[in-house]
Amino acid sequence: MKKKYRIECDLLGEKEISNKYYYGIQTLRAKENFSISGVPLSNFPKLIIALAQVKKASALANNKLGLLDDEICNAICSACDELFAKKYHKQFIVDVIQGGAGTSTNMNANEVIANIALELIGKKKGEYEFIHPNNHVNMSQSTNDVYPTAVRLALYEYLCKLQNKMEVLKESFSTKAKEFEKIIKMGRTQLQDAVPMTLGQEFNSFALMIDDDIKVIEMVKGLVAQMNLGGTAIGTGINTDSKYAALVKEKLEEVTNRPFVTACDLVKATQDTSTFVHVSGVLKSIATKISKICNDLRLLSSGPRTGINEINLPKMQPGSSIMPGKVNPVIPEVVNQVAFQVIGYDTTISLASEGGQLQLNVFEPIIAYNLFQSVNMMCNAFETLAFKCVDGITANEDVCKNQVLNSIGLVTALNPYIGYHNATAVAKEALNTNRSVYDIVLEKKLLSKEQLDEYLKPENMTHPSFSGECKL
Amino acid sequence: MKKKYRIECDLLGEKEISNKYYYGIQTLRAKENFSISGVPLSNFPKLIIALAQVKKASALANNKLGLLDDEICNAICSACDELFAKKYHKQFIVDVIQGGAGTSTNMNANEVIANIALELIGKKKGEYEFIHPNNHVNMSQSTNDVYPTAVRLALYEYLCKLQNKMEVLKESFSTKAKEFEKIIKMGRTQLQDAVPMTLGQEFNSFALMIDDDIKVIEMVKGLVAQMNLGGTAIGTGINTDSKYAALVKEKLEEVTNRPFVTACDLVKATQDTSTFVHVSGVLKSIATKISKICNDLRLLSSGPRTGINEINLPKMQPGSSIMPGKVNPVIPEVVNQVAFQVIGYDTTISLASEGGQLQLNVFEPIIAYNLFQSVNMMCNAFETLAFKCVDGITANEDVCKNQVLNSIGLVTALNPYIGYHNATAVAKEALNTNRSVYDIVLEKKLLSKEQLDEYLKPENMTHPSFSGECKL
Amino acid sequence: MKKKYRIECDLLGEKEISNKYYYGIQTLRAKENFSISGVPLSNFPKLIIALAQVKKASALANNKLGLLDDEICNAICSACDELFAKKYHKQFIVDVIQGGAGTSTNMNANEVIANIALELIGKKKGEYEFIHPNNHVNMSQSTNDVYPTAVRLALYEYLCKLQNKMEVLKESFSTKAKEFEKIIKMGRTQLQDAVPMTLGQEFNSFALMIDDDIKVIEMVKGLVAQMNLGGTAIGTGINTDSKYAALVKEKLEEVTNRPFVTACDLVKATQDTSTFVHVSGVLKSIATKISKICNDLRLLSSGPRTGINEINLPKMQPGSSIMPGKVNPVIPEVVNQVAFQVIGYDTTISLASEGGQLQLNVFEPIIAYNLFQSVNMMCNAFETLAFKCVDGITANEDVCKNQVLNSIGLVTALNPYIGYHNATAVAKEALNTNRSVYDIVLEKKLLSKEQLDEYLKPENMTHPSFSGECKL
Amino acid sequence: MKKKYRIECDLLGEKEISNKYYYGIQTLRAKENFSISGVPLSNFPKLIIALAQVKKASALANNKLGLLDDEICNAICSACDELFAKKYHKQFIVDVIQGGAGTSTNMNANEVIANIALELIGKKKGEYEFIHPNNHVNMSQSTNDVYPTAVRLALYEYLCKLQNKMEVLKESFSTKAKEFEKIIKMGRTQLQDAVPMTLGQEFNSFALMIDDDIKVIEMVKGLVAQMNLGGTAIGTGINTDSKYAALVKEKLEEVTNRPFVTACDLVKATQDTSTFVHVSGVLKSIATKISKICNDLRLLSSGPRTGINEINLPKMQPGSSIMPGKVNPVIPEVVNQVAFQVIGYDTTISLASEGGQLQLNVFEPIIAYNLFQSVNMMCNAFETLAFKCVDGITANEDVCKNQVLNSIGLVTALNPYIGYHNATAVAKEALNTNRSVYDIVLEKKLLSKEQLDEYLKPENMTHPSFSGECKL
Repeated sequence: MKKKYRIECDLLGEKEISNKYYYGIQTLRAKENFSISGVPLSNFPKLIIALAQVKKASALANNKLGLLDDEICNAICSACDELFAKKYHKQFIVDVIQGGAGTSTNMNANEVIANIALELIGKKKGEYEFIHPNNHVNMSQSTNDVYPTAVRLALYEYLCKLQNKMEVLKESFSTKAKEFEKIIKMGRTQLQDAVPMTLGQEFNSFALMIDDDIKVIEMVKGLVAQMNLGGTAIGTGINTDSKYAALVKEKLEEVTNRPFVTACDLVKATQDTSTFVHVSGVLKSIATKISKICNDLRLLSSGPRTGINEINLPKMQPGSSIMPGKVNPVIPEVVNQVAFQVIGYDTTISLASEGGQLQLNVFEPIIAYNLFQSVNMMCNAFETLAFKCVDGITANEDVCKNQVLNSIGLVTALNPYIGYHNATAVAKEALNTNRSVYDIVLEKKLLSKEQLDEYLKPENMTHPSFSGECKL
Repeated sequence: MKKKYRIECDLLGEKEISNKYYYGIQTLRAKENFSISGVPLSNFPKLIIALAQVKKASALANNKLGLLDDEICNAICSACDELFAKKYHKQFIVDVIQGGAGTSTNMNANEVIANIALELIGKKKGEYEFIHPNNHVNMSQSTNDVYPTAVRLALYEYLCKLQNKMEVLKESFSTKAKEFEKIIKMGRTQLQDAVPMTLGQEFNSFALMIDDDIKVIEMVKGLVAQMNLGGTAIGTGINTDSKYAALVKEKLEEVTNRPFVTACDLVKATQDTSTFVHVSGVLKSIATKISKICNDLRLLSSGPRTGINEINLPKMQPGSSIMPGKVNPVIPEVVNQVAFQVIGYDTTISLASEGGQLQLNVFEPIIAYNLFQSVNMMCNAFETLAFKCVDGITANEDVCKNQVLNSIGLVTALNPYIGYHNATAVAKEALNTNRSVYDIVLEKKLLSKEQLDEYLKPENMTHPSFSGECKL
Repeated sequence: MKKKYRIECDLLGEKEISNKYYYGIQTLRAKENFSISGVPLSNFPKLIIALAQVKKASALANNKLGLLDDEICNAICSACDELFAKKYHKQFIVDVIQGGAGTSTNMNANEVIANIALELIGKKKGEYEFIHPNNHVNMSQSTNDVYPTAVRLALYEYLCKLQNKMEVLKESFSTKAKEFEKIIKMGRTQLQDAVPMTLGQEFNSFALMIDDDIKVIEMVKGLVAQMNLGGTAIGTGINTDSKYAALVKEKLEEVTNRPFVTACDLVKATQDTSTFVHVSGVLKSIATKISKICNDLRLLSSGPRTGINEINLPKMQPGSSIMPGKVNPVIPEVVNQVAFQVIGYDTTISLASEGGQLQLNVFEPIIAYNLFQSVNMMCNAFETLAFKCVDGITANEDVCKNQVLNSIGLVTALNPYIGYHNATAVAKEALNTNRSVYDIVLEKKLLSKEQLDEYLKPENMTHPSFSGECKL
Repeated sequence: MKKKYRIECDLLGEKEISNKYYYGIQTLRAKENFSISGVPLSNFPKLIIALAQVKKASALANNKLGLLDDEICNAICSACDELFAKKYHKQFIVDVIQGGAGTSTNMNANEVIANIALELIGKKKGEYEFIHPNNHVNMSQSTNDVYPTAVRLALYEYLCKLQNKMEVLKESFSTKAKEFEKIIKMGRTQLQDAVPMTLGQEFNSFALMIDDDIKVIEMVKGLVAQMNLGGTAIGTGINTDSKYAALVKEKLEEVTNRPFVTACDLVKATQDTSTFVHVSGVLKSIATKISKICNDLRLLSSGPRTGINEINLPKMQPGSSIMPGKVNPVIPEVVNQVAFQVIGYDTTISLASEGGQLQLNVFEPIIAYNLFQSVNMMCNAFETLAFKCVDGITANEDVCKNQVLNSIGLVTALNPYIGYHNATAVAKEALNTNRSVYDIVLEKKLLSKEQLDEYLKPENMTHPSFSGECKL
C-alpha cells in the first residue's frame, strides 16, 4: 500500500505532509502561520515564473562553477521549465502577506522545485538526500537576494504589460481625437467658460497624457532591472564563489531575455527598496492622471438635460433601480475607483519602504503585493475604459457648437483686434443682457461682419493665429 | 425537454441567462462590465446578509402600508431568510470594485431574492410578472438608500467582530503583563537608556492601548448606526409613502436586533460618506498603534547576541535559507504589514469620500471594499498575533535585571537624594570609566549601602515613591 | 558698565548669551541645532500659554507638597501669568520641527520662566542658584509628561476655536438654505439628472454636514483631555511624590478651567500618541467634507453659459489676465486646497505616530505642528468661505426651475401612478425626441392635466408624498 | 503736496492703494481674499525670479515680433533685472495658498513689474496708460502658461540645490565609510543577528543610496524642463502670433541659461500636472530612504548600556530635563520628521493633481507650495545631518568586533566547509549553552584551528570568497 504522507523535518521539528503536495514542511508552516489576506502566491503567476527563472539561472551558474553536478542541475532546470509552463502554480499556497522577508516564498519555490526535480529523476517527493531544497535548489543563494530579484523580474513583466494596455487606451483616445477634430466647443478653466477649442484637441490631450507616462515607465524599468542576485544574506556575497555573481547574471539574461544587470553595490542593493517606491510613485501619477481624465469624461457627458452634455458615453447598464431611463457613466466611475486604490497602495508601499531596518527590508512582501495589485487593476481598468467606454463615445456636435456661439468667452479671440478694454465692455453687456457677443460687437460697429467671421473661424480661434499686424 | 436558458430584458435590451443562476440580466451586465479586482461580492458575506436584512425590513414595511400583498411579502422574506443562512452567496458575482454607486450590488440582491422567492411560490426563475426585482423586491427603495444602509449594517457587524479580536489580543497582553510584573528592566526613550520599569508595565501598556481603541470603536459605531433608508434616490423620499421611513426603521430593528436609527436629514445622509472616513480614521489609528507594538516586540526580542534580547518570541518557522539556526519575528512582521495596508486603505477611502459630487457619492463601493478588507485583515492579524506570538513570549529575566544594574539611568532614581548636580557627575564618571553607578555612589560616599539598596528597590524605582522628606 | 552677555553652562559646556534674552543655553543650542522650517514656536501662542499653565499648576502642586517654597512658587506663577498675557512670546525661538521629543520646547519654557521669575524677585537673568530652570521650574516634571500635556491643552483650545468657525460657516449655509427653500431644481446623482429637490435642501445639507462634525469634535475633545502629567520620564512617576499626580491635576483644572483628567495608566499614556491620530482623522474627515462642498459650489456655479449655472458666487477678483469678463470661484478653490493640505498633514501625523518606539514617541513635535497648522488653516478657510463666498451666493431661480420642467428625471415622480414600465417608455421617447415628459404623458393620456399638475407640485416631488392609494 | 494714495480700477471697481507699494489693485484684492497660511510669495524668492524670467523672455519675444516697442520692452526688462537682484521681493504679498490657479501670483508680478518699469521711464506708479500690467507686461501670455512655467523654472533650481545638498551628505557618509572600512561588525536582518560585514560597508550603503537619488533627480529634471509657455489660456495659443511660442522659448533659454523646451502639445501641457506628481514621488522616495538611514543611525547608536552601541553620534544638546547625563540622537530625529512631512506633502500634491478639471488644474498653487517646502526642508535637513551628525560619528570598534566573535551568525561562514547540517547543530548548541561557535567547532573537531582562523578572516567573511574547492 502506498503511503499517503511523508515526514519532513526542519529546525523546529517534524511534520506530516500529504504526498499529493509538492511543497514541503517550510511551506506548510508558512501556510499555517499566515492566514491574513486569503490571497495565495499562485494569484501572481509572473512572480512564480520569475522565481523559477532565478533558480534556473543559479543552477546553471553553480553547475558551471563545478558546484552542482550535471544530473541535479538538469533536473532543477527541467523543474523550472515546468513552472514556466504554469503546471504547478497551485502548489504556491503561502499567503501573499507574510512575515520573514519572503523566506516563505523562496522556500515554497525551493521545495516545489526540489520535489518536481526528484520525480523527474525517478525519486520520490521528500527524498531530499538526492536533491535538497536548500543545499541544491537554493545553492549560492539567500532569500535576501533571490526574492527581491524575482520581484523585480516579475515587476518588469508587469510594467511591460501595463505599457501595452496604456497603448491600447492611447489608441482609443487618438482615434476619437481624429474623429472629433472638426468639432468646435468651449474650453473651460476653473469650470468657467474660457475660450474655444476642438473636441479633438481635448481627446488628443488624453491620448498624449497617457503616452507621456508610457515613456516614464520605460525610464523606471531601467531602475527595476538592477538586481542584487549574488549578494546572498546581506549583500556581502557570503557563501558564494567570487565568480558567481557575474556568472548568474549572464545566465539570468539567457533565461529571461531581459536586460537585467547586477547593482553596483550589493550591500546597498539588498537593503534598498527605493526602486519600488519610485515605481509606485509613477503608478500613482498615472492613477491621478487617469482619474482626472475620467472626471472629465463624466463632466463632459453630464446631463442629459441639466449638465454639459457635449459627449455621450456608450450605455453599459441601466443606471437606477428607481429612476426610469437613467444611465450612468459606470465605466469611468470604476476607473476612478481603481485610481483611488492605486493611490492608497502607494501610501502602503511608502510606509513599508520607510520601515526597513539595517541590512534588509523585511516588508518586501507587502510592497510586491501592492505593486502587482496596482498594475493588475490598472491593466484591467485601462482595457475596460478603452473597449467599454472610449471606443463608443459620440459627440453632440450641435451642443458643442452652440455653446461656442452663445459664449462670452468668444470675445477673447477679439482681444487683439478690439482691445482688452472694449472686449471687457462687450463681455459685461453680453452677460447682463443675455445676448451674444457677436451681435453686440456688430451693433457697436467694433468690427465688420466679414472681420468677425474671419476672426471667429474655428481654425483661427483654436490655434495661434494672430498675425501681429493689428497692433492696438 | 427543460430549457437551459431564459431570456431577460432591461432598458438596453435582452440577454440569455442560464437557468442555473438566480441572478438576472442586470447582474450579468455588471459582471461583464467590471472585470477589475477579480474579487466577487460573495467574499463579503456580511454585506450580503445586510442587503437581505434591508430587503426583508422593506418588504414588511411595504406590506404593512398595504403596498405589497401578503404572498409576495412572505416569499420575499423567506428568500431573505435563505440568504441569512448563506445558501445562495455564490450568486453574488459582481466585482466588488464597480461603477454605479452600488446599483449593481443592489440589483444583484434584487434579482437573486426575486428568483428565490419565485421558486418558493412555485414559479420559475425569471417570471418577474409575479415577483419583480424592481417593482417588488426594491419597492420604496433606491440603490442610493439601500446600498449605504446595507454597508452600514455590515460595517457594524465587522466592527463588533474586530472588537472581539481586540479583546482576545488585549487578554494575551494582560496575561503576560501579570506574568512579567516582577521583572525589572530598563525603560528606553529615544532608544537611549532611560529609567527602570517592569516588563509587566511594558506589556500592560500594550494591553491598555488596545483596550482604549475598543472603546473608540464603540463611539464610532454610534455614527455607523445612522442610516438613510427611506430617502430613496436623493434623500427626498420620492416614491415613498410618508410613513415608510419610520416604519422600515422599526422593521429593520426587528430584523437585525441592532440599534439603527434614521438620520436626521436624508438628503444630507444620502450624499455624506464622512462616517466611513471617521471609521477608517479609527482603523488607521489602531493600525499605527499595533504597528508600534509590533515594532517594540521586534526590538525587545532582537538578538539573540547582538541585540536587546529581553524577551523571546515563540519560534514559528526557520528564518533563513542560508543562515543556520536563524529564527525571525515573522508574526510581528506580518502584523506590521497589515498595518501598512490598512493605512493605505485609509488614503483610498479619503480620496473616494472627497470625490463625491452633489446628491450622491458614487464611490461608495471602493469605500466599502476597503473598510471591509481593513477589518478582515486586522481580525486575522490580531488573532494571529495573540495565539502565535504573544501567548508564547518568555522573558530573559537575567538580561533585563543586569541591564538595570549595569545602567547609568539608574542614577535618575537618586536625583531626589543626591541632587541633579551630583547625579550628573556620577553619570559622567560611570560612562567614562565603564563602571557601575552603584559602586561610584558608594565610593564617593554619597549614600550608605542601606540607603542605596532602599532607593533602588524595584518597587521604589517603578512607581512614584519619593516621600518628599529629603528635600535638597 | 553693564555686561552684555552672561555665561551659562550645561552638560556639554558653556555658552555666552546676550542679556537681552530670557531664554538660556539649552534654548540656544536647540536654535542652532534645528534650522529646518524657519517657523519658531512663537507662531503658536496657544502652545506657549499651555506650557505656562502646566508650569504654574506644577509649581502650585510642588508648593503644596512642601517641595517648593512660597517665594519661588509665587515668582514662577507670576512669570507664567506674564506668558498668559503674551508678553514674552518672542522668546520662544526654537524651530517647531525639532528632535528630542519636545525637550527643547520644554527647556525654552523652563529657561524663559526662570529668568522672568528671577527678575520678578529682583535677581538677574542667569542667577539660577535662586530659581533654576530644571530644579525649580521643571520640578517633579519631565519633558515627557509636560510637553504632551501642553500639546493637549493647546489642541483642546484649537479645537474649540475650530468649532466656533464651523458654527459660523454652518450659519451661513443655514441662512441660505432658508432663503432658497422654495427654489425647485434638479437633483443629480453621478452627474446625471436624477429627481427634483429644492436648492434649500441642498444648502441645508451643507449646513448639517458641518454641524455633524462639530459634534464629532466634541467627542474627540474627551480623548484630548486625558493627560499624562505626573508620569515624568516614562510614566512610572519616578522622582515624584506619590500625591503629586492627583494634586497637579487639581491645580491644572484651576489654572485652565478645562476638564482635564489624568490618564488611567501613565506608562501607557506617555508612549501613546493615538489621540492625536484620532484628532487628525477627524480633521481629515472635515477636510474631505468641506472639499466636497466646495466642489459642489464650483459645479453649481459653473458657466455662466456653458455650465450648470444654478447659483452665482460673489465676484471677488478678476479671474484672468487674458479673458475679459471672466470671474472664477476663487474662494471655494482656496478652501479645496486647504483641505488637500490637511489630508496631507494627516499622512504625516500617522507616520510620526507609527514611528514611536518603546516608552516614548519622539516625533511629537511634528505631530503637534501638523495638528496646529491644520486647525489654523481650516479656521481661516472656513471664515473666508462663510464671509467671502456663501453669504453672497444668489440663485438663478429661472434656470433651476426650467431645468426641472425640461428634465426627464421628472418622470420618476410619476412612477407610482403610471408604473415603472410606462415611465421608462416616456423617458425614452423624451430623450429621443427632445420633448418634455409633461407633454408626452398628456399626449399618451397616461394622466390628466390635473393629476399631472398635482403630482408634479414641488412640495410633492421633494418630500415623501405617495399616499399609497394608487397601487399598481 | 504729494498724494499718498493712487486709485486703481479693475473689472470689479476701484480701490485706493498706497503709493509706497509697487503692487496694484489685483494684488491687493488677492491679499484680502486669501488669509490662509500667512506665508507670502516672498518666502519663495526662486519663484519670483522665475516669474521675472518669463516676463523678460516674453517682452523680448514680443518686441522682436514688433508687438512691443523698444522703450517699453527695455523698461520691462530692466524691471525684471531688478527682481533678479531681489530688490522688490517684499512686494510679493499674496498668500502662497490661493484660489485662481495662480492668477493672483501672475498679476502680482505684472503689477510690480509695470510699476517698477514706469518709474524707470520717469512715470509714476499706476500710470498704466504708458506701461500696462495686462496689455504690456502680460502680452501674449495668460496666467495659465506663465504660472506653470515659472513654477517649473523655480522647481528646476530647487532641484539643483537639493542635488548639491545631497552631494554634501553623500560625501559625509563616504568619508566615514573609508574611516570605518576595517571595522568588522555583525550585519542584521529582521533585527536578528545575521552575518559579518564591515561598518564601512554599512556607511558606504548610505552614501550610495543618496547617490542613486541624485541621479533620479537628474532624470526628472528633464520632465520639469518641458513648459507650456505660448499656450496662453488653454493651450491653443489664442491671442498669440504663430511665431511667438518658438521665439519666447529661445529668449527664455537666453535669460535663464537652462535647457527648457516647449512641450509637444500645449493643450495637454496646460492641464497636465503629472510632472509635479512625478517629482513629488521622487522627493517622497528620498524621504523614505533618509528616514530609513536615520532610523539605522538611531538603532546603531542606541544604548549606551542597554542598546546596540556600535557607534556614537556627536552630542548636540542635553537630552533630558530629568535624567542626568542623557544625550539623545536629536539630529536624526529631526530628519525623520522632515521625511514624514515630505511624505505628507506628497499626499497633498497627489490630491491636488487628481482634482484638476478639463483644460486647467486650478490647484497648482498648493502643488507648488508643497514642492518648494519639501525641497527647502530637505535641503536644511541634509545639511544639518551631514554637519551636525555624520561628520562627528565615531565607532566603538571593540563592541563591534566582540559582537562578531560572540555571535552565532558566524557559523554561516562555515557552511561551505562543514555543511548546513553540521552548522545548524553548532548553532543550536551555541545558543543553548551560551558558548561560542569557535570553541564548539574546535571541540567537535569539525575544522582545525588554522582552517577556522582562515575562514573567519574578516576579509573572507565580508566578500564572496568561497573558492568552490571544498564541495560538500
